[in-house]
Amino acid sequence: MYDLIIVGAGPAGMTAAIYAARRKIKFLLMTIDVGGQVVWSSEIENFPGTLSSTGIELVQKFQAQLKKYKVDIKQEEVLGVRKIGGVVKVKTKSGVYSSKAVIVASGKKPKKLGVPGEDEFLGKGVNYCATCHAPLYKGKTVAVVGGGNSGLEAALFLREYAKKVSLLDINVKLGGESYLRERVLADKNIEVINSVKISEIVGSQLNSKHQTGQGEVVSGLKYNDGKVLKVDGVFVEVGLVAELGFVDVKKNKWGEIKLFRGTRTHNENLTSVPGVFAAGDCTDVVAKQIVVAAGEGAKAAMAAMDYILKG
Amino acid sequence: MYDLIIVGAGPAGMTAAIYAARRKIKFLLMTIDVGGQVVWSSEIENFPGTLSSTGIELVQKFQAQLKKYKVDIKQEEVLGVRKIGGVVKVKTKSGVYSSKAVIVASGKKPKKLGVPGEDEFLGKGVNYCATCHAPLYKGKTVAVVGGGNSGLEAALFLREYAKKVSLLDINVKLGGESYLRERVLADKNIEVINSVKISEIVGSQLNSKHQTGQGEVVSGLKYNDGKVLKVDGVFVEVGLVAELGFVDVKKNKWGEIKLFRGTRTHNENLTSVPGVFAAGDCTDVVAKQIVVAAGEGAKAAMAAMDYILKG
Repeated sequence: MYDLIIVGAGPAGMTAAIYAARRKIKFLLMTIDVGGQVVWSSEIENFPGTLSSTGIELVQKFQAQLKKYKVDIKQEEVLGVRKIGGVVKVKTKSGVYSSKAVIVASGKKPKKLGVPGEDEFLGKGVNYCATCHAPLYKGKTVAVVGGGNSGLEAALFLREYAKKVSLLDINVKLGGESYLRERVLADKNIEVINSVKISEIVGSQLNSKHQTGQGEVVSGLKYNDGKVLKVDGVFVEVGLVAELGFVDVKKNKWGEIKLFRGTRTHNENLTSVPGVFAAGDCTDVVAKQIVVAAGEGAKAAMAAMDYILKG
Repeated sequence: MYDLIIVGAGPAGMTAAIYAARRKIKFLLMTIDVGGQVVWSSEIENFPGTLSSTGIELVQKFQAQLKKYKVDIKQEEVLGVRKIGGVVKVKTKSGVYSSKAVIVASGKKPKKLGVPGEDEFLGKGVNYCATCHAPLYKGKTVAVVGGGNSGLEAALFLREYAKKVSLLDINVKLGGESYLRERVLADKNIEVINSVKISEIVGSQLNSKHQTGQGEVVSGLKYNDGKVLKVDGVFVEVGLVAELGFVDVKKNKWGEIKLFRGTRTHNENLTSVPGVFAAGDCTDVVAKQIVVAAGEGAKAAMAAMDYILKG
């Protein structure tokens, strides 16, 4: 029987683990990936205490702290979290773990467009992480789909590599923060196309002599009833979604876990199921920021430890 | 008219300022001291992204970020925050500032014992910050008043300088975290005295040839109906209090600002007065931690900016 199982190792889960480790409780940190969305960030300048850092560097700093406290990360996908008879059962492929409390900090994942070609060309021209894959498109042409902050940021970042970036926005006007919008609109190598409805991502056989035999790759996309945009790569930046089917707690209409905040005499970061806590982007906390997720992770850890102590 | 005035420059206020600066809104950061309680911490190991740091070093890192965004800190004490006709008025000695929104992030201050001698000997043997003043007591004897975490930490830290530390606890048994308690009880140079009720801090004329003419300094304290403990210094570590008389919003029974958390469509970190937000240790958020305060500061800033935008 564990005291605590933390699901997810983004900023929320890792911070919760730092707090749990310092209190020397018996706990597990379970995740399929370390760092969550942070690893996708090219440059982070709003995490206090760290003047400027890439996402990967910041994750490494968090990991160094986990290492210091000898926290092992169990790389297993959590398939179910259920409270049965006062105990929280966490199911993975390898078995079922029992714990007094659980913190769900599984973050969010990129939303898909849901068009033909998207799955087929994943890794063959279809991308969800500009920071990760932009360097592959040096001197090439790319489309960024999404007119919000993440789309704007992706376009600006890709601009440093690609010779031309087409920013496709479903709306009539770009969204996002004004300073990003201004930079995008001022860049003559970024073409903004508004009111776009994408119908298909299309490909063609590689024709380079050096890359034969690898099958089709992205060659463009179809939009607005028959128009075709020729590009070498597509970056999908249409938002994030919380995949929380594994945990049966109350959620809001965006599928985020509803948090219940107690008074001083109660626990914070509670879900609708006592013993199941939640923190970070998978919750209904509005501000989706690294420092907010970290703070929420610490809050959830302290609340969970309080819950464990009180039985 | 400002968009935002942030009151206090601890982790919450400074993080809020980083977020405000990045959004290029017109704002002020007003405070009487920079860093808040963080500067009193000898060693911080639970702030993610920073493996280990003194409190002062961490504050300097936060300040470096403020400097990068050219945030000026206005060193003025806020005497009043009132909403009048849709505008928040912030009163200081030098005048009244108008703002669309305010974030109160004024933290907490050390609680006093409230006994004779405490005010008279402030700085003459009475201290509220072990980290700041421990080095002054090299080879001397000190009393730490308070049997919670801050008292235990202060005793352990003072032990590195003073030849003897008496830890005075009002309760029959020490509180605080077990790992701190164990270290205190195992230290033969820390004497724990439980069930203590202090009645007076007493002093005597300095008799050193090198320090004549400076008046009286602490020589001991009286407790439990007539007992006297001879010490060279007293460190008061009996908890913290939020001094929030300047802002007329709803508070809980500990005098902390009550936060109202909206749903996704509403602002977070709201107080009972629209346009007045709050973050950090001065609020009813239970976890009083640096990373939590920083996260709450970011949340409050985003909520305030959302409020300003929507008018």
